[in-house]
Amino acid sequence: MEAAFYKGDKTIAIGRCVSESPGPGQVQIAVSHCGICGTDLHIYLGHMDARVRMPQILGHEMAGTIAAVGPNVDGWHEGDRVTVRPLDACGQCPACKAGHDHICMNLKFLGIDTPGAMQEFWTVPASTLHRLPEQLSFEHGALIEPIAVAAHDVRLGEVQSGEFVVVQGAGPIGLLIALVARLEGARVLISEVNPFRLKLAQELGLETIDPTKADVVERVEALTDGAGADVVFEVSGSAAGAEMMTKLPRTRGRIVVVAIFAKAPQIDLFRFFWRELRLCGTRVYEPQDFDRAIEMTASGQLPLERVVSQVIDLHQLADSFEQLEQGSDLVKVLVRCHS
Amino acid sequence: MEAAFYKGDKTIAIGRCVSESPGPGQVQIAVSHCGICGTDLHIYLGHMDARVRMPQILGHEMAGTIAAVGPNVDGWHEGDRVTVRPLDACGQCPACKAGHDHICMNLKFLGIDTPGAMQEFWTVPASTLHRLPEQLSFEHGALIEPIAVAAHDVRLGEVQSGEFVVVQGAGPIGLLIALVARLEGARVLISEVNPFRLKLAQELGLETIDPTKADVVERVEALTDGAGADVVFEVSGSAAGAEMMTKLPRTRGRIVVVAIFAKAPQIDLFRFFWRELRLCGTRVYEPQDFDRAIEMTASGQLPLERVVSQVIDLHQLADSFEQLEQGSDLVKVLVRCHS
Repeated sequence: MEAAFYKGDKTIAIGRCVSESPGPGQVQIAVSHCGICGTDLHIYLGHMDARVRMPQILGHEMAGTIAAVGPNVDGWHEGDRVTVRPLDACGQCPACKAGHDHICMNLKFLGIDTPGAMQEFWTVPASTLHRLPEQLSFEHGALIEPIAVAAHDVRLGEVQSGEFVVVQGAGPIGLLIALVARLEGARVLISEVNPFRLKLAQELGLETIDPTKADVVERVEALTDGAGADVVFEVSGSAAGAEMMTKLPRTRGRIVVVAIFAKAPQIDLFRFFWRELRLCGTRVYEPQDFDRAIEMTASGQLPLERVVSQVIDLHQLADSFEQLEQGSDLVKVLVRCHS
Repeated sequence: MEAAFYKGDKTIAIGRCVSESPGPGQVQIAVSHCGICGTDLHIYLGHMDARVRMPQILGHEMAGTIAAVGPNVDGWHEGDRVTVRPLDACGQCPACKAGHDHICMNLKFLGIDTPGAMQEFWTVPASTLHRLPEQLSFEHGALIEPIAVAAHDVRLGEVQSGEFVVVQGAGPIGLLIALVARLEGARVLISEVNPFRLKLAQELGLETIDPTKADVVERVEALTDGAGADVVFEVSGSAAGAEMMTKLPRTRGRIVVVAIFAKAPQIDLFRFFWRELRLCGTRVYEPQDFDRAIEMTASGQLPLERVVSQVIDLHQLADSFEQLEQGSDLVKVLVRCHS
């Protein structure tokens, strides 16, 4: 069978590999579709060469059908339509013991620390499976993982119906956070500098603002009778975003840091004192976030057609990575892995 | 009657003033004792000259007896023993309407934005009063305000019995946070560089560490089986403290920023992502924090004798400010205002 391998130096090769029979507690999935994640792009660009083992099979945003069930697996059968929550926790560390196994201190991320889903058959622990309802297409099923990220962020931000939410950054995750928060009943303003992303956000019915062209503080105050935003999601990962995020919340407002800041930015802690602000970091998802993502997606209330920019074959993958590197106007690219 | 005035340029003068009769909704208090707050020192040093109206009567940490009751005041009588929660909110702004009137957008702080308590009689709104139980001395009554700060910080930090708490900074507020957290059932490690403050903390039975002489991360990990601290209170206001505070918490641990950072420090947001940390800013107190501070103090379980360094007369106040400016080994100085 075929798989997409990252071989270092911005090289993606399609090659043969042997399908792995499911061991005890495992299932083998015939992968239908797999999305390209920002993390996959980081791997492609060589940022994670110290972590991945080359040749690395990429991919962890997927949907497919169970093709084989290993020993000691209950409740799952050949033909079941599934997606995978790609986390393998140790179960022994203080984080796991505290019930935070999604941020296990020895976490293995399937598709980064193990072979990924961009192959015809993917073998994973049955404990990672979530069932996809019949009405949910495999294309949308491959979006469940990033939607679960957004659902986790919105849950940790404690977004309530009727609240005013600002999302800083309209990349794939920022857009999904905005759509999920809106579905939870929030009013959403999304801030972005890229014209393509701004236009897409508008077409999705979101209120937008370009912080290089308008005063975000002024806009938020005007829209909230001077109170400020209930929740700000910082997804831009920029120093400007880190500076803006403390200016927007109301008294006791919440800031959710979603972006990964490799460099420590300056943060206005005075503002935390002055308005008793709260901030939380978020990382991946927990099982209930997958459940909520599946429920939201199956309801048909998320406008996901506009989020998928391309559906390609494995053989076109190298081209798509080149386009993504060049910053083309792509949101989510899905790869067909199994004919 | 006499009062202590700040006249600018590090000058404290004792002068005559006329006692103000209580108007509608007000009471006049015969002030027994008033503490010197760090904020009073800031005023003395000229840091707040743009805000205070000179000559400014200082002081807001006080206890005394009601001497006169104005019209339209229910429930308070001459002779009642009281302390004052020195906040006057507008009641109209978005913060007040959201129920956060302690961080009112137009907050007047009694003793900073109005005449303070370092006078024989102080006239304040009856809505600011809290009753002192008989067994609580006026000296301890004058400590209720800073203890309420600590109670607020510990409450917003959601400290639970059995949790491991690190307090960064053993000045008056850091010490009180440590003592309050301990009384709430936490195990407390207090970090401080000043030898006098370290010794005092030890004498109060607190575990201490000097971050310039020992590895705080290593110590916290050793004391928590590798998990990290449940809560970190940053009270040092230093860049080193802002750097350390993100290294110590467990997964989903909390950081409470108590210190006022005039300059925005660099903050390791990556760590917030990695461990899903939470941070909150805190400001002053709410009525329930005064209630809890009075309850704790009246119980006799806080070792407050060691917290009071000096009890002086109004005429000695200029000397005490000079000593505080020179960084003498003083924790809390109380002033007798009424003979």
